[in-house]
Amino acid sequence: MPRPTRWRTVLRTATTLFAANGFAAASVSQVARRARLSKPGLYYHVRDKEELLFRICDYSMAGILAGARAAVAAGRDPAERLRELIRAHVAFHWQHPNNLAILFGQGKYLSAARGRRVAAMEREYLGLVRGVIREGQRRRCFQRVDSTVAAFSLFAMLNTLDGWYDARGRIRPPQLLAELERLYLDGLMARDRPALRPRLLRRTPQQGGFA
Amino acid sequence: MPRPTRWRTVLRTATTLFAANGFAAASVSQVARRARLSKPGLYYHVRDKEELLFRICDYSMAGILAGARAAVAAGRDPAERLRELIRAHVAFHWQHPNNLAILFGQGKYLSAARGRRVAAMEREYLGLVRGVIREGQRRRCFQRVDSTVAAFSLFAMLNTLDGWYDARGRIRPPQLLAELERLYLDGLMARDRPALRPRLLRRTPQQGGFA
Repeated sequence: MPRPTRWRTVLRTATTLFAANGFAAASVSQVARRARLSKPGLYYHVRDKEELLFRICDYSMAGILAGARAAVAAGRDPAERLRELIRAHVAFHWQHPNNLAILFGQGKYLSAARGRRVAAMEREYLGLVRGVIREGQRRRCFQRVDSTVAAFSLFAMLNTLDGWYDARGRIRPPQLLAELERLYLDGLMARDRPALRPRLLRRTPQQGGFA
Repeated sequence: MPRPTRWRTVLRTATTLFAANGFAAASVSQVARRARLSKPGLYYHVRDKEELLFRICDYSMAGILAGARAAVAAGRDPAERLRELIRAHVAFHWQHPNNLAILFGQGKYLSAARGRRVAAMEREYLGLVRGVIREGQRRRCFQRVDSTVAAFSLFAMLNTLDGWYDARGRIRPPQLLAELERLYLDGLMARDRPALRPRLLRRTPQQGGFA
Protein backbone atom coordinates (compact mmCIF):
# COMPACT_ATOMS: atom_id res chain seq x y z
CA MET A 1 0.00 0.00 0.00
CA PRO A 2 1.30 3.48 -0.82
CA ARG A 3 1.90 5.77 2.17
CA PRO A 4 -1.39 7.58 2.61
CA THR A 5 -0.24 11.21 3.14
CA ARG A 6 2.23 11.35 0.29
CA TRP A 7 -0.21 9.52 -1.94
CA ARG A 8 -2.87 12.10 -1.11
CA THR A 9 -0.45 14.86 -2.14
CA VAL A 10 0.24 13.09 -5.43
CA LEU A 11 -3.47 12.67 -6.12
CA ARG A 12 -4.25 16.29 -5.26
CA THR A 13 -1.35 17.59 -7.33
CA ALA A 14 -2.28 15.50 -10.38
CA THR A 15 -5.92 16.55 -10.03
CA THR A 16 -5.01 20.26 -10.00
CA LEU A 17 -2.63 19.84 -12.95
CA PHE A 18 -4.99 17.75 -15.11
CA ALA A 19 -7.82 20.20 -14.41
CA ALA A 20 -5.71 23.23 -15.32
CA ASN A 21 -3.85 21.97 -18.40
CA GLY A 22 -5.75 18.85 -19.43
CA PHE A 23 -4.54 15.27 -19.16
CA ALA A 24 -2.93 15.29 -22.61
CA ALA A 25 -0.72 18.31 -21.90
CA ALA A 26 0.35 17.26 -18.38
CA SER A 27 3.40 15.06 -17.78
CA VAL A 28 4.41 12.65 -15.04
CA SER A 29 7.54 14.77 -14.46
CA GLN A 30 5.38 17.83 -13.81
CA VAL A 31 3.27 15.94 -11.29
CA ALA A 32 6.42 14.64 -9.57
CA ARG A 33 8.02 18.11 -9.45
CA ARG A 34 4.90 19.77 -8.04
CA ALA A 35 4.38 16.98 -5.51
CA ARG A 36 8.09 17.38 -4.53
CA LEU A 37 8.90 13.80 -5.46
CA SER A 38 11.54 12.31 -7.72
CA LYS A 39 10.21 10.58 -10.82
CA PRO A 40 11.09 7.14 -9.34
CA GLY A 41 9.38 8.34 -6.15
CA LEU A 42 6.21 8.97 -8.13
CA TYR A 43 6.50 5.64 -9.96
CA TYR A 44 6.42 3.98 -6.55
CA HIS A 45 2.77 5.07 -6.43
CA VAL A 46 1.61 4.62 -10.03
CA ARG A 47 2.82 2.87 -13.16
CA ASP A 48 2.04 5.73 -15.59
CA LYS A 49 0.04 8.89 -16.24
CA GLU A 50 -3.06 6.97 -17.24
CA GLU A 51 -3.05 5.12 -13.91
CA LEU A 52 -2.90 8.51 -12.20
CA LEU A 53 -5.99 9.58 -14.15
CA PHE A 54 -7.75 6.34 -13.26
CA ARG A 55 -6.96 6.80 -9.56
CA ILE A 56 -8.49 10.31 -9.69
CA CYS A 57 -11.65 9.04 -11.41
CA ASP A 58 -11.85 6.03 -9.08
CA TYR A 59 -11.36 8.22 -5.99
CA SER A 60 -14.02 10.65 -7.23
CA MET A 61 -16.66 8.06 -8.06
CA ALA A 62 -15.92 6.14 -4.85
CA GLY A 63 -16.43 9.37 -2.87
CA ILE A 64 -19.65 10.24 -4.70
CA LEU A 65 -20.92 6.67 -4.23
CA ALA A 66 -20.07 6.58 -0.52
CA GLY A 67 -21.91 9.86 -0.01
CA ALA A 68 -24.89 8.57 -1.96
CA ARG A 69 -25.09 5.31 -0.02
CA ALA A 70 -24.96 7.22 3.29
CA ALA A 71 -27.66 9.60 1.99
CA VAL A 72 -29.96 6.76 1.02
CA ALA A 73 -29.42 5.13 4.42
CA ALA A 74 -29.99 8.37 6.34
CA GLY A 75 -33.19 9.62 4.67
CA ARG A 76 -36.42 8.46 6.24
CA ASP A 77 -38.46 8.71 3.05
CA PRO A 78 -37.72 9.08 -0.68
CA ALA A 79 -37.91 12.91 -0.63
CA GLU A 80 -35.49 13.10 2.28
CA ARG A 81 -33.19 10.53 0.67
CA LEU A 82 -33.12 12.59 -2.52
CA ARG A 83 -32.46 15.77 -0.56
CA GLU A 84 -29.55 14.05 1.21
CA LEU A 85 -28.29 12.74 -2.15
CA ILE A 86 -28.29 16.29 -3.55
CA ARG A 87 -26.44 17.59 -0.50
CA ALA A 88 -23.85 14.80 -0.61
CA HIS A 89 -23.19 15.32 -4.33
CA VAL A 90 -22.76 19.09 -3.98
CA ALA A 91 -20.67 18.67 -0.81
CA PHE A 92 -18.28 16.29 -2.58
CA HIS A 93 -17.94 18.74 -5.44
CA TRP A 94 -17.31 21.70 -3.15
CA GLN A 95 -14.69 19.75 -1.25
CA HIS A 96 -13.07 18.52 -4.50
CA PRO A 97 -13.66 21.34 -6.97
CA ASN A 98 -11.60 19.82 -9.83
CA ASN A 99 -12.55 16.16 -9.62
CA LEU A 100 -15.86 16.10 -11.46
CA ALA A 101 -14.48 18.17 -14.34
CA ILE A 102 -11.72 15.56 -14.77
CA LEU A 103 -14.14 12.66 -14.43
CA PHE A 104 -16.45 14.06 -17.14
CA GLY A 105 -13.94 15.88 -19.32
CA GLN A 106 -10.84 13.68 -19.30
CA GLY A 107 -12.32 10.24 -18.65
CA LYS A 108 -12.01 9.59 -22.39
CA TYR A 109 -8.25 9.18 -21.91
CA LEU A 110 -8.71 6.09 -19.72
CA SER A 111 -7.84 2.68 -21.13
CA ALA A 112 -10.87 0.66 -22.23
CA ALA A 113 -10.70 -1.64 -19.19
CA ARG A 114 -10.36 1.20 -16.69
CA GLY A 115 -12.99 3.24 -18.50
CA ARG A 116 -15.36 0.32 -17.99
CA ARG A 117 -14.58 0.21 -14.25
CA VAL A 118 -15.38 3.90 -13.87
CA ALA A 119 -18.50 3.52 -16.04
CA ALA A 120 -19.66 0.68 -13.76
CA MET A 121 -19.43 2.98 -10.73
CA GLU A 122 -21.31 5.68 -12.62
CA ARG A 123 -24.02 3.15 -13.44
CA GLU A 124 -24.20 2.16 -9.78
CA TYR A 125 -24.68 5.82 -8.84
CA LEU A 126 -27.36 6.27 -11.50
CA GLY A 127 -29.03 3.12 -10.17
CA LEU A 128 -29.07 4.47 -6.61
CA VAL A 129 -30.66 7.75 -7.70
CA ARG A 130 -33.18 6.06 -9.98
CA GLY A 131 -33.98 3.60 -7.19
CA VAL A 132 -34.93 6.42 -4.82
CA ILE A 133 -37.01 8.09 -7.55
CA ARG A 134 -38.83 4.84 -8.30
CA GLU A 135 -39.43 4.16 -4.65
CA GLY A 136 -41.01 7.61 -4.35
CA GLN A 137 -43.18 6.81 -7.34
CA ARG A 138 -44.29 3.47 -5.87
CA ARG A 139 -45.23 5.30 -2.68
CA ARG A 140 -47.06 7.91 -4.79
CA CYS A 141 -45.11 10.83 -3.39
CA PHE A 142 -43.23 11.44 -6.68
CA GLN A 143 -44.69 12.04 -10.13
CA ARG A 144 -44.44 9.28 -12.70
CA VAL A 145 -41.83 10.96 -14.87
CA ASP A 146 -39.29 8.61 -16.43
CA SER A 147 -36.68 7.91 -13.75
CA THR A 148 -33.80 8.20 -16.26
CA VAL A 149 -34.96 11.65 -17.40
CA ALA A 150 -35.42 12.67 -13.76
CA ALA A 151 -31.99 11.36 -12.69
CA PHE A 152 -30.06 12.96 -15.56
CA SER A 153 -31.93 16.24 -15.09
CA LEU A 154 -30.71 16.22 -11.51
CA PHE A 155 -27.12 15.43 -12.51
CA ALA A 156 -27.34 18.26 -15.08
CA MET A 157 -28.39 20.78 -12.42
CA LEU A 158 -25.67 19.67 -10.01
CA ASN A 159 -22.80 19.13 -12.44
CA THR A 160 -23.03 22.46 -14.28
CA LEU A 161 -22.92 24.73 -11.21
CA ASP A 162 -19.28 25.56 -11.94
CA GLY A 163 -20.29 27.19 -15.20
CA TRP A 164 -22.34 29.95 -13.59
CA TYR A 165 -22.32 29.80 -9.79
CA ASP A 166 -19.87 31.86 -7.74
CA ALA A 167 -19.95 30.93 -4.06
CA ARG A 168 -18.61 34.40 -3.18
CA GLY A 169 -21.54 36.11 -4.95
CA ARG A 170 -25.04 37.22 -3.97
CA ILE A 171 -26.41 33.70 -3.43
CA ARG A 172 -24.77 31.95 -0.49
CA PRO A 173 -24.10 28.18 -0.74
CA PRO A 174 -26.84 27.15 1.74
CA GLN A 175 -29.39 29.24 -0.20
CA LEU A 176 -28.25 27.72 -3.49
CA LEU A 177 -28.67 24.22 -2.08
CA ALA A 178 -32.10 25.02 -0.67
CA GLU A 179 -33.29 26.47 -4.00
CA LEU A 180 -31.98 23.56 -6.05
CA GLU A 181 -33.67 21.12 -3.68
CA ARG A 182 -36.90 23.07 -3.86
CA LEU A 183 -36.91 23.39 -7.65
CA TYR A 184 -36.03 19.77 -8.23
CA LEU A 185 -37.96 18.05 -5.46
CA ASP A 186 -41.10 20.11 -5.95
CA GLY A 187 -40.96 19.18 -9.62
CA LEU A 188 -40.76 15.54 -8.71
CA MET A 189 -43.28 15.51 -5.91
CA ALA A 190 -46.66 14.90 -7.43
CA ARG A 191 -49.05 17.75 -6.78
CA ASP A 192 -51.92 15.32 -6.97
CA ARG A 193 -50.95 13.34 -3.89
CA PRO A 194 -53.52 10.93 -2.38
CA ALA A 195 -54.20 13.16 0.62
CA LEU A 196 -55.00 16.17 -1.54
CA ARG A 197 -57.20 14.76 -4.29
CA PRO A 198 -60.03 12.25 -4.49
CA ARG A 199 -58.83 8.89 -5.71
CA LEU A 200 -60.83 8.83 -8.90
CA LEU A 201 -59.31 12.02 -10.23
CA ARG A 202 -55.76 10.83 -9.86
CA ARG A 203 -55.54 8.81 -13.06
CA THR A 204 -57.55 10.74 -15.65
CA PRO A 205 -55.52 10.91 -18.88
CA GLN A 206 -55.67 14.72 -18.84
CA GLN A 207 -53.50 14.61 -15.75
CA GLY A 208 -50.50 14.28 -18.03
CA GLY A 209 -49.85 10.88 -19.59
CA PHE A 210 -48.46 8.94 -16.63
CA ALA A 211 -45.99 6.40 -17.97
CA MET B 1 -23.52 40.28 -48.63
CA PRO B 2 -22.29 36.71 -49.15
CA ARG B 3 -24.45 34.51 -51.41
CA PRO B 4 -26.83 32.80 -48.99
CA THR B 5 -26.74 29.17 -50.17
CA ARG B 6 -22.99 28.86 -50.47
CA TRP B 7 -22.55 30.72 -47.20
CA ARG B 8 -24.89 28.28 -45.50
CA THR B 9 -22.75 25.39 -46.80
CA VAL B 10 -19.62 27.07 -45.43
CA LEU B 11 -21.23 27.62 -42.05
CA ARG B 12 -22.53 24.06 -41.85
CA THR B 13 -19.19 22.60 -42.95
CA ALA B 14 -17.21 24.66 -40.44
CA THR B 15 -19.68 23.75 -37.68
CA THR B 16 -19.31 20.02 -38.36
CA LEU B 17 -15.53 20.28 -38.53
CA PHE B 18 -15.09 22.41 -35.39
CA ALA B 19 -17.42 20.10 -33.49
CA ALA B 20 -15.55 16.97 -34.57
CA ASN B 21 -11.92 18.10 -34.27
CA GLY B 22 -12.10 21.27 -32.18
CA PHE B 23 -11.46 24.81 -33.39
CA ALA B 24 -7.74 24.67 -32.66
CA ALA B 25 -7.10 21.56 -34.80
CA ALA B 26 -9.27 22.64 -37.76
CA SER B 27 -7.85 24.73 -40.63
CA VAL B 28 -9.39 27.15 -43.11
CA SER B 29 -8.09 24.94 -45.96
CA GLN B 30 -9.99 21.97 -44.52
CA VAL B 31 -13.21 23.99 -44.35
CA ALA B 32 -12.68 25.21 -47.92
CA ARG B 33 -11.97 21.70 -49.22
CA ARG B 34 -15.00 20.18 -47.51
CA ALA B 35 -17.25 23.04 -48.67
CA ARG B 36 -15.88 22.52 -52.21
CA LEU B 37 -14.49 26.04 -52.38
CA SER B 38 -11.05 27.38 -53.20
CA LYS B 39 -9.28 29.10 -50.32
CA PRO B 40 -9.82 32.53 -51.96
CA GLY B 41 -13.45 31.48 -52.45
CA LEU B 42 -13.74 30.92 -48.70
CA TYR B 43 -11.97 34.19 -47.94
CA TYR B 44 -14.72 35.91 -49.92
CA HIS B 45 -17.01 34.96 -47.01
CA VAL B 46 -14.77 35.40 -43.95
CA ARG B 47 -11.48 37.03 -43.12
CA ASP B 48 -10.10 34.18 -41.00
CA LYS B 49 -10.86 31.07 -38.94
CA GLU B 50 -11.82 33.09 -35.88
CA GLU B 51 -14.43 34.99 -37.89
CA LEU B 52 -15.85 31.64 -38.97
CA LEU B 53 -16.14 30.65 -35.32
CA PHE B 54 -17.77 33.96 -34.49
CA ARG B 55 -20.31 33.54 -37.29
CA ILE B 56 -21.24 30.10 -35.94
CA CYS B 57 -21.68 31.45 -32.40
CA ASP B 58 -23.56 34.52 -33.67
CA TYR B 59 -25.84 32.38 -35.86
CA SER B 60 -26.51 30.01 -32.94
CA MET B 61 -27.31 32.68 -30.37
CA ALA B 62 -29.37 34.63 -32.92
CA GLY B 63 -31.39 31.48 -33.62
CA ILE B 64 -31.88 30.69 -29.94
CA LEU B 65 -32.87 34.31 -29.25
CA ALA B 66 -35.33 34.45 -32.16
CA GLY B 67 -36.96 31.24 -30.91
CA ALA B 68 -37.11 32.61 -27.39
CA ARG B 69 -38.68 35.91 -28.46
CA ALA B 70 -41.31 34.06 -30.48
CA ALA B 71 -41.99 31.77 -27.51
CA VAL B 72 -42.45 34.67 -25.13
CA ALA B 73 -44.80 36.36 -27.62
CA ALA B 74 -46.80 33.18 -28.25
CA GLY B 75 -47.40 32.01 -24.67
CA ARG B 76 -50.57 33.34 -23.04
CA ASP B 77 -49.22 33.09 -19.49
CA PRO B 78 -45.78 32.61 -17.84
CA ALA B 79 -46.10 28.81 -17.66
CA GLU B 80 -47.00 28.58 -21.33
CA ARG B 81 -44.24 31.03 -22.27
CA LEU B 82 -41.72 28.91 -20.38
CA ARG B 83 -43.02 25.74 -22.02
CA GLU B 84 -42.63 27.37 -25.43
CA LEU B 85 -39.14 28.56 -24.46
CA ILE B 86 -38.14 24.99 -23.57
CA ARG B 87 -39.54 23.69 -26.86
CA ALA B 88 -37.80 26.37 -28.91
CA HIS B 89 -34.44 25.76 -27.20
CA VAL B 90 -34.62 21.99 -27.69
CA ALA B 91 -35.92 22.39 -31.27
CA PHE B 92 -32.97 24.63 -32.17
CA HIS B 93 -30.57 22.11 -30.70
CA TRP B 94 -32.14 19.17 -32.50
CA GLN B 95 -32.04 21.06 -35.80
CA HIS B 96 -28.43 22.17 -35.20
CA PRO B 97 -26.90 19.33 -33.18
CA ASN B 98 -23.32 20.71 -33.15
CA ASN B 99 -23.92 24.41 -32.59
CA LEU B 100 -24.42 24.56 -28.84
CA ALA B 101 -21.35 22.39 -28.21
CA ILE B 102 -19.27 24.87 -30.21
CA LEU B 103 -20.87 27.87 -28.51
CA PHE B 104 -20.11 26.51 -25.03
CA GLY B 105 -16.93 24.54 -25.73
CA GLN B 106 -15.02 26.63 -28.26
CA GLY B 107 -16.29 30.15 -27.52
CA LYS B 108 -13.07 30.70 -25.57
CA TYR B 109 -11.21 30.98 -28.89
CA LEU B 110 -13.13 34.12 -29.88
CA SER B 111 -11.35 37.49 -29.82
CA ALA B 112 -12.19 39.59 -26.77
CA ALA B 113 -14.45 41.95 -28.74
CA ARG B 114 -16.38 39.15 -30.45
CA GLY B 115 -16.55 37.16 -27.22
CA ARG B 116 -18.28 40.19 -25.67
CA ARG B 117 -20.80 40.34 -28.52
CA VAL B 118 -21.72 36.69 -28.03
CA ALA B 119 -21.82 37.15 -24.24
CA ALA B 120 -24.22 40.07 -24.72
CA MET B 121 -26.61 37.82 -26.67
CA GLU B 122 -26.31 35.15 -23.96
CA ARG B 123 -27.17 37.77 -21.35
CA GLU B 124 -30.17 38.83 -23.41
CA TYR B 125 -31.36 35.22 -23.51
CA LEU B 126 -30.83 34.83 -19.77
CA GLY B 127 -32.77 38.07 -19.30
CA LEU B 128 -35.70 36.78 -21.34
CA VAL B 129 -35.90 33.54 -19.36
CA ARG B 130 -35.51 35.29 -16.01
CA GLY B 131 -38.14 37.83 -17.08
CA VAL B 132 -40.70 35.08 -17.67
CA ILE B 133 -39.82 33.45 -14.34
CA ARG B 134 -40.17 36.74 -12.50
CA GLU B 135 -43.44 37.55 -14.21
CA GLY B 136 -44.76 34.16 -13.05
CA GLN B 137 -43.61 34.97 -9.54
CA ARG B 138 -45.32 38.37 -9.60
CA ARG B 139 -48.51 36.63 -10.71
CA ARG B 140 -48.00 34.06 -7.94
CA CYS B 141 -48.08 31.09 -10.28
CA PHE B 142 -44.33 30.35 -9.81
CA GLN B 143 -42.47 29.74 -6.58
CA ARG B 144 -40.16 32.44 -5.31
CA VAL B 145 -36.92 30.63 -6.06
CA ASP B 146 -34.07 32.85 -7.21
CA SER B 147 -34.62 33.50 -10.93
CA THR B 148 -30.91 33.05 -11.72
CA VAL B 149 -30.82 29.62 -10.05
CA ALA B 150 -34.05 28.69 -11.83
CA ALA B 151 -32.81 29.89 -15.25
CA PHE B 152 -29.43 28.16 -15.05
CA SER B 153 -31.04 24.97 -13.76
CA LEU B 154 -33.21 25.01 -16.88
CA PHE B 155 -30.22 25.62 -19.19
CA ALA B 156 -28.41 22.77 -17.43
CA MET B 157 -31.25 20.34 -18.11
CA LEU B 158 -31.54 21.38 -21.75
CA ASN B 159 -27.85 21.77 -22.62
CA THR B 160 -26.65 18.43 -21.26
CA LEU B 161 -29.13 16.22 -23.14
CA ASP B 162 -26.42 15.23 -25.62
CA GLY B 163 -24.47 13.58 -22.81
CA TRP B 164 -27.09 10.93 -22.10
CA TYR B 165 -30.11 11.15 -24.37
CA ASP B 166 -30.39 9.05 -27.51
CA ALA B 167 -33.35 10.06 -29.68
CA ARG B 168 -33.39 6.55 -31.21
CA GLY B 169 -33.78 4.92 -27.78
CA ARG B 170 -36.69 3.96 -25.54
CA ILE B 171 -37.80 7.54 -24.81
CA ARG B 172 -39.13 9.28 -27.93
CA PRO B 173 -38.37 13.01 -28.38
CA PRO B 174 -41.96 14.19 -27.67
CA GLN B 175 -42.00 12.16 -24.43
CA LEU B 176 -38.62 13.59 -23.41
CA LEU B 177 -39.86 17.13 -23.98
CA ALA B 178 -43.07 16.48 -22.07
CA GLU B 179 -41.17 15.02 -19.11
CA LEU B 180 -38.62 17.84 -18.99
CA GLU B 181 -41.43 20.38 -19.09
CA ARG B 182 -43.28 18.54 -16.36
CA LEU B 183 -40.26 18.16 -14.08
CA TYR B 184 -39.13 21.72 -14.50
CA LEU B 185 -42.43 23.56 -14.64
CA ASP B 186 -44.00 21.61 -11.80
CA GLY B 187 -40.94 22.49 -9.73
CA LEU B 188 -41.40 26.13 -10.51
CA MET B 189 -45.15 26.28 -10.15
CA ALA B 190 -45.95 26.94 -6.54
CA ARG B 191 -48.02 24.15 -5.06
CA ASP B 192 -49.57 26.65 -2.67
CA ARG B 193 -51.37 28.63 -5.34
CA PRO B 194 -54.14 31.03 -4.26
CA ALA B 195 -56.95 28.83 -5.58
CA LEU B 196 -55.77 25.80 -3.64
CA ARG B 197 -54.99 27.18 -0.20
CA PRO B 198 -56.58 29.68 2.13
CA ARG B 199 -54.87 33.07 1.88
CA LEU B 200 -53.58 33.14 5.44
CA LEU B 201 -51.65 29.93 5.07
CA ARG B 202 -49.72 31.08 2.04
CA ARG B 203 -46.95 32.96 3.81
CA THR B 204 -46.21 31.01 6.94
CA PRO B 205 -42.42 30.76 7.32
CA GLN B 206 -42.64 26.96 7.43
CA GLN B 207 -43.77 27.06 3.82
CA GLY B 208 -40.12 27.31 2.83
CA GLY B 209 -38.39 30.66 3.29
CA PHE B 210 -39.73 32.66 0.37
CA ALA B 211 -36.99 35.06 -0.74
